Amino acid sequence: MPRTLPPSQLIPRLLSGDRLALSRAISQVEEGGDEARDLLAGIFPHTGRGHLIGITGAPGTGKSTLVTGLVQAYRTAGQTVAVLAVDPSSPFSGGALLGDRVRMSKLSGDAGVFIRSMATRGSLGGLAAATADALLLLDAAGYERILIETVGVGQAEVEIAGAAHTTVVVEAPGLGDEVQAIKAGVLEIADIFVVNKADRPGVERTVGALELMLHMAEGAPRQLFHHGLLMEIAAAPVENENDGWRVQVFKTVAASGGGIPAIIAEIERHRAWLAENGRLAARERLRMARSIEQIVQAELLRRTRAALPADNLAALVEEVTARRLDPYAAAERVLARMG
Amino acid sequence: MPRTLPPSQLIPRLLSGDRLALSRAISQVEEGGDEARDLLAGIFPHTGRGHLIGITGAPGTGKSTLVTGLVQAYRTAGQTVAVLAVDPSSPFSGGALLGDRVRMSKLSGDAGVFIRSMATRGSLGGLAAATADALLLLDAAGYERILIETVGVGQAEVEIAGAAHTTVVVEAPGLGDEVQAIKAGVLEIADIFVVNKADRPGVERTVGALELMLHMAEGAPRQLFHHGLLMEIAAAPVENENDGWRVQVFKTVAASGGGIPAIIAEIERHRAWLAENGRLAARERLRMARSIEQIVQAELLRRTRAALPADNLAALVEEVTARRLDPYAAAERVLARMG
Repeated sequence: MPRTLPPSQLIPRLLSGDRLALSRAISQVEEGGDEARDLLAGIFPHTGRGHLIGITGAPGTGKSTLVTGLVQAYRTAGQTVAVLAVDPSSPFSGGALLGDRVRMSKLSGDAGVFIRSMATRGSLGGLAAATADALLLLDAAGYERILIETVGVGQAEVEIAGAAHTTVVVEAPGLGDEVQAIKAGVLEIADIFVVNKADRPGVERTVGALELMLHMAEGAPRQLFHHGLLMEIAAAPVENENDGWRVQVFKTVAASGGGIPAIIAEIERHRAWLAENGRLAARERLRMARSIEQIVQAELLRRTRAALPADNLAALVEEVTARRLDPYAAAERVLARMG
Repeated sequence: MPRTLPPSQLIPRLLSGDRLALSRAISQVEEGGDEARDLLAGIFPHTGRGHLIGITGAPGTGKSTLVTGLVQAYRTAGQTVAVLAVDPSSPFSGGALLGDRVRMSKLSGDAGVFIRSMATRGSLGGLAAATADALLLLDAAGYERILIETVGVGQAEVEIAGAAHTTVVVEAPGLGDEVQAIKAGVLEIADIFVVNKADRPGVERTVGALELMLHMAEGAPRQLFHHGLLMEIAAAPVENENDGWRVQVFKTVAASGGGIPAIIAEIERHRAWLAENGRLAARERLRMARSIEQIVQAELLRRTRAALPADNLAALVEEVTARRLDPYAAAERVLARMG
């Protein structure tokens, strides 16, 4: 296959399950541009079948090992699985690193598994948009279960994982009080809590702390992403996304496979629960609204850039740096140029 | 003082060092709106004096303890210090949590210290913008050294810390290979590396790994934030921001104060180095360009929202969810409405 293929040739190959075509398609959406757009328009009608599972957790929780365990379990059950690992980027190395890919290498010979880590060049909005696009490609390629692994500490990472159909938040015993604080940020996105490394001391304290937090949060709405352009409107019909779903805490020792079947069962139970009463559709609406918003935002920035001569911008920045103009007044001048 | 004050009354109080006024001003910029804008326009000519120091590191590195140590050392040297802690948000609790604030409580009686944690409600852009605004307020209030503490794993957090004049990246021995991967993302922003908890086993291995990474990166440019609207233009004059600065690795045991004086000295050395040959001005230009861009972006989103009737948006999202329209085509329709 040549290095680049036009969408018209790439799309049928991707839809037929060609892994190389899928890989190239993901690279294209990472790069962006018109071809990526045509590609996505072409595959979009074929999406909406795969179940998206966000796996998020702080460094040291062993979530990559858990992901590996989940992949193996799905394969044993005969389901195809894709993994999208969203990592902090290095514009420096020009690509994403993922230490745990080594652990997954034993799965790489399996045609029913597709593993990819995202390079996160460019802006934050860029990362979220490229991830959303890559998920559409994996879905169109026919993967039945799609795992999105994020570091789960930064806000972007939490949002990306939280946009899945089912979000699994991974903790581990004894990670210190800073991690406790972070939990408050992920509490709202968790459909399932996993305390991994459950053979370590302190596991019951961690489980207890999580259960206490969940108990205190009971009745409080799961309301994510109610900021921004389209979110509020699209999400409005769902007052409390998790009404009737009780978030539970599970223990795993992913390194030995312990506890994995219970997680798989809980994910499937959550999927079935979502399918009732149009909840899955509500989450889909929210995902699509976010996707539209990200594209609008990127396009507005592109237009602003195109509308302004570089000299003007540099002069404006200079005025602000010299404190002769404040940033808000400078922004107003930029906006005035756009009409 | 009444709960809210108009900018005309808040500004002189803030400039005279009134801590309550400063605190209320930060709350105002977190909320946004016209008053916040007038406030910032009023204080902006008085900014540009404080030295901004980003302190970033993964959970478990003990960076809050390091921050406490730095604050104490600056106070001993007779300098005023502010700390801005940027934490993952909890829309749930309605505010930011910070476990380590307890450790800082012993400093709270000191009039030369101001500590604040940012609530990160709303969008990612919102966090970055509110943080930039809060830094301007702390600067105008006369704090000589301003520490910005971020979790340093997510991309937003890395960008916020990296926008400081001097960026300190904190590591600790034995945090596992996932953390190693994250380092690649922070390598480009580090002016100083600190391996904290240096009394733990494995410290030499961590120091060695960092030094190897720095060695491999030698000669590669420190080039951050060259994406987006204004960045490229404003940053263009600085080909390599750290040309001539050798990033070094320091060891600390922050809990006992060990190694702190060397960090203080290195920060001051970096500040002096920046002041030579206009490098400080170059970093300021970059900060200001980012700030303008954030404001432009927020305003464009506000306009989009105002231009579109809610019914239209909901119908558009529905079309996409039903796969009758792709997200790019939907975004095009949104943009068409804006003219």
